[in-house]
Amino acid sequence: MSTGFPPRVFIQEVVTRDGLQIEPCFLPTEDKVALIDALSQTGVAKIEVTSFVSPRAVPNLADAREVARAIRRWPDVTYVALVPNLRGAQEALEAGMDELNLVLSVSETHNLANMRMTTAQSLEGFRAIVAAAAGTRVSLNGSIATAFGCPFEGVQPAEKVLDLVEAYLAAGLQSVTLADTTGMANPRQVFALVSGFRARFGGVPLTLHFHNTRGMGLANALAALEAGADRFDASLGGIGGCPFAPGATGNISTEDFVHMLGQMGIETGVDLPALLALARSLPALLGHDIPGQVAKAGRSGDLHPVPAHLRAAQ
Amino acid sequence: MSTGFPPRVFIQEVVTRDGLQIEPCFLPTEDKVALIDALSQTGVAKIEVTSFVSPRAVPNLADAREVARAIRRWPDVTYVALVPNLRGAQEALEAGMDELNLVLSVSETHNLANMRMTTAQSLEGFRAIVAAAAGTRVSLNGSIATAFGCPFEGVQPAEKVLDLVEAYLAAGLQSVTLADTTGMANPRQVFALVSGFRARFGGVPLTLHFHNTRGMGLANALAALEAGADRFDASLGGIGGCPFAPGATGNISTEDFVHMLGQMGIETGVDLPALLALARSLPALLGHDIPGQVAKAGRSGDLHPVPAHLRAAQ
Repeated sequence: MSTGFPPRVFIQEVVTRDGLQIEPCFLPTEDKVALIDALSQTGVAKIEVTSFVSPRAVPNLADAREVARAIRRWPDVTYVALVPNLRGAQEALEAGMDELNLVLSVSETHNLANMRMTTAQSLEGFRAIVAAAAGTRVSLNGSIATAFGCPFEGVQPAEKVLDLVEAYLAAGLQSVTLADTTGMANPRQVFALVSGFRARFGGVPLTLHFHNTRGMGLANALAALEAGADRFDASLGGIGGCPFAPGATGNISTEDFVHMLGQMGIETGVDLPALLALARSLPALLGHDIPGQVAKAGRSGDLHPVPAHLRAAQ
Repeated sequence: MSTGFPPRVFIQEVVTRDGLQIEPCFLPTEDKVALIDALSQTGVAKIEVTSFVSPRAVPNLADAREVARAIRRWPDVTYVALVPNLRGAQEALEAGMDELNLVLSVSETHNLANMRMTTAQSLEGFRAIVAAAAGTRVSLNGSIATAFGCPFEGVQPAEKVLDLVEAYLAAGLQSVTLADTTGMANPRQVFALVSGFRARFGGVPLTLHFHNTRGMGLANALAALEAGADRFDASLGGIGGCPFAPGATGNISTEDFVHMLGQMGIETGVDLPALLALARSLPALLGHDIPGQVAKAGRSGDLHPVPAHLRAAQ
């Protein structure tokens, strides 16, 4: 920890994509749009708006096109869509997204379960997406799912993960996300893999995507920060999970993470009170409680009044 | 993180003290005893059995005497009781506890609210307890509540906390706990305070006591480990909180912490499957869900069977 932390961390909000996809009920399009428009004004760096995926596979995101068209665009926010294949990429390009987030799993079994393709087929498919985006100003990010462990195959070798990063870069992608899809990562592993990434790929932009499945979400984020990571996905309220990953639960909570960073003196540019107000609106929207803690407990600095009988005694 | 972690961490279970005191219902004495007897066989280093406190102040622990007498004693486990004053200490000594845990708050306002005394009065009272324990084999630990922040007064200066440690040692106490009573600590602060403790007090045994009030519990534990801490309080299921501390919620979950340490290759000597079985018994005992995550999600290494349609395809 003595080596210090990055002075500034970029917060990438994924609540309307990863957050919503496993929800029991469909959030109406207008509510999604209102939520994204409100998030656009909180200071987050990116918003993963939706996923252009088959409505049969993820019914909750069946309105991807409508959402992408209806949201307002803030100049300082990068609007991202997850795309599983060329068709999704074409829809995302037509919808004017700023960035496409491609995804495959380093675990062959998880890729078959999640994408219905082998990893090699996924990579091959990415070439067509790169071609489709060529000549546009749209940037391409490559996500590596199960980078810290697969619920079917277990921990994946770091070398295999980093080789896949190399394949991404060779295919023409500009940045990479290492995703702990089902919350299997631990801090020591995170520090080692992020350090390994930095050593091999230098300044290639890297995002970390953690779930709090086993309570280690913010501990893993801390370990990543210590290894120099400065971009993180997080989900408002800590909701979310992958419908094709057994045992997956919520992403790290955006407001809890922003709160921790603020307490540590690390700049995010995010308006925490605005974020907390949005997090507190989620239970009414979703019909259930949220995992995020700060929305319930208040910020560390929100002091309580001294009890009346003590004020009298003092 | 490059400086490494302690090779072995001591787990101190507080579920039947800190865990139960804020519960809405009284857990029957026989259930407490059965839980402690089961915990004695999991490999935890200490168990904080109960608190010898006024039954009016903490009705849930009104059976302190009965519990302390009825539990079985395992030779490798240190049995501790929290004592707020001389009367409590005498009862704990009569009940044959191995260790007394004295407590005061570094925040004057919190001490008044929690102990109904000034900090100076608390310290003065400790002299009588030290005298009462003299000549016995009972060890004395001093806890500093609100060491990382007070819900009434805010963050307390590190110097003030460490001066209190010195006062504890001067009074004849052998070991110290720094308690984040209402979950206000952040990792940077934890690293600094634990490092400051180590620099000033060398090998004096130090326990860290964290709550997960704002989601930072395990991140704070990680920061403490990095500063060399190797003793931690934790509560089965992550239940608990201080009835006199507004906004206080559960302790860090014993099973989630032991799981994280195991994944990081740090030895605890604790039987995680046994601990998970006990954590999973809590909802039936308490009548509500528990915050602990691993009891729900399973361990990172608990793999799922490959889906049948993929096995057929391979």
